[in-house]
Amino acid sequence: MPDYDLHHHGDREVGPGLVDLAVNVRLPRPPAWLRQVLASALDSLAAYPSTVDAECAVAARHGRPPSEVLVTAGAAEAFTLLASALRPRHAVVVHPQFTEPEAALRAAGHAVTRVLLSEADGFVLDPSLVPLDADLVFVGNPTNPTSVLHPAASLLSLARPGRLLVVDEAFLDAVPGEGESLAAGAPGVVVLRSLTKTWGLAGLRAGYVLAPADVVERLRAVQVPWSVSTLAGVATVACCRPSALEEAEKLAIAAESDREYLVSGLAEVGVPVLGDPRGPFVLVRVPDGASVRARLREAGFAVRRGDTFPGLGPDHLRLAVRDRATTDAFLAALREVS
Amino acid sequence: MPDYDLHHHGDREVGPGLVDLAVNVRLPRPPAWLRQVLASALDSLAAYPSTVDAECAVAARHGRPPSEVLVTAGAAEAFTLLASALRPRHAVVVHPQFTEPEAALRAAGHAVTRVLLSEADGFVLDPSLVPLDADLVFVGNPTNPTSVLHPAASLLSLARPGRLLVVDEAFLDAVPGEGESLAAGAPGVVVLRSLTKTWGLAGLRAGYVLAPADVVERLRAVQVPWSVSTLAGVATVACCRPSALEEAEKLAIAAESDREYLVSGLAEVGVPVLGDPRGPFVLVRVPDGASVRARLREAGFAVRRGDTFPGLGPDHLRLAVRDRATTDAFLAALREVS
Repeated sequence: MPDYDLHHHGDREVGPGLVDLAVNVRLPRPPAWLRQVLASALDSLAAYPSTVDAECAVAARHGRPPSEVLVTAGAAEAFTLLASALRPRHAVVVHPQFTEPEAALRAAGHAVTRVLLSEADGFVLDPSLVPLDADLVFVGNPTNPTSVLHPAASLLSLARPGRLLVVDEAFLDAVPGEGESLAAGAPGVVVLRSLTKTWGLAGLRAGYVLAPADVVERLRAVQVPWSVSTLAGVATVACCRPSALEEAEKLAIAAESDREYLVSGLAEVGVPVLGDPRGPFVLVRVPDGASVRARLREAGFAVRRGDTFPGLGPDHLRLAVRDRATTDAFLAALREVS
Repeated sequence: MPDYDLHHHGDREVGPGLVDLAVNVRLPRPPAWLRQVLASALDSLAAYPSTVDAECAVAARHGRPPSEVLVTAGAAEAFTLLASALRPRHAVVVHPQFTEPEAALRAAGHAVTRVLLSEADGFVLDPSLVPLDADLVFVGNPTNPTSVLHPAASLLSLARPGRLLVVDEAFLDAVPGEGESLAAGAPGVVVLRSLTKTWGLAGLRAGYVLAPADVVERLRAVQVPWSVSTLAGVATVACCRPSALEEAEKLAIAAESDREYLVSGLAEVGVPVLGDPRGPFVLVRVPDGASVRARLREAGFAVRRGDTFPGLGPDHLRLAVRDRATTDAFLAALREVS
């Protein structure tokens, strides 16, 4: 199914001299306290890594037993582990969403049914669209690239005996209060988390899985030995500390405010956002999107193309939420080119 | 085949207060220049990692085109990629050797034929033992845990059309002159390298594959996106610089001298090493080995048990080569307990 380039990601759209609205990482670098933690750990790199401390820290943060936690080399590793450990009879991916889950499933030889949420309905999760016999279902929350946050109740209505529901919460720590999270656990629910976006750690590869203990064991059995580096483990411990969680909450509130500023500005330019955005990015639709995107690049701004997401097309563009000065400059450029 | 614990590794034998002769990492920490390189890169962690620079650096170091290089999260990732990308009809692992290749093959559902080299012959590679119809053959060089360095000519005699020969050279940069390496390339030969052992980077996960371009493409297609961190990439570039290669050569010469010191000392204690050791560790056989190992732990020394390696048993112990003071202390303890 070569219809969409499922391996295309925003990092490919960034270029020298371009202001980056294509990649959904908030900070330009990890905060000073986190860089200090990482610098201190450079002395201990000779030892093989262990995830024990990180798994205990994640377990304590979410109130789960350590047996229900698997630390991974970013959320991306989790998709590959799920695809390689599980033998779904009917795998379903709810689109538009991050394309790596489907890519990982297909690379592992599984057929995938795409469920497409409706743009007209604001990409709201309609559980009735998911086939009843699906035994593995992937949903993003908040969803990349729509930025829609599905209610926990809608998600839980998808859980049922004999089915694993995988909720990608890679961006949920950017939602104030982490509302609608299923990280506390529910039967048959697998939650994926990332430290990448909030903490400026895309280059370090740090994330984790929260799942029933038997699922964690199956994933661990196919994980590359020592795949999570010592530094990713150390970062995971540090980012689970109460002080880090407080800082993440403040960053989420600031991002929300910055997003509202972007949304208002886009409305003034005549480019309304789609759906009800709750994450640190928004999805828009503009006529002749490919040309707008090209002209934005000429004006110095990289935005994320939408046409690699199943259910979207070339007129869809994903815009990262940035600080107001960056947003002002971007809106000025958008006004010029659209 | 639960006969050997293929997932057991020396890092599990290390413990608080124990002098570590179980893990084959030479340096207690990365050298200062390398820690400085890594510390400088902490500012750039917000960006997604790219392996382009590292693959160019590795290509230049070995005189291969970049299309024949795949940077990996340690050599361990390479075994999983090979097992998951290839569809061998008859996979063969030449033992005793590092157990992850067989573990990865089995985890991916492949049957594995074990070829056992003879202890009486000093674990020399006997190509006639490898079944003619084997289309995927794994050999270590120098081999962990025997420390035997196979001649390039013996290895090349195993290469043939329709067969991939995978040579794990994870320890070859600890052999002065990198003698017998196949890194320069040969038809049907895949070489795995690690930066972990020489540079004290086990915690960072850095290694690479040198292979025909079509094999590299197949491995890349099943690699977890961004699996190699920014810091592993930066370390790879730094460790390919001429100054680093000169330093590695000096470290290899020092390790050789330290190994000869250990071998002489062992002979004096009445514990001759097996085979002709050429790597930064040696294999010995002692009567009542399990008990000797336990008493060494009580005396404060962790050594690597041999009984998790196919072809070896509880009387086999692997000893890492350390500096002379550590070796002296170890030999004194060994004299006491054996």
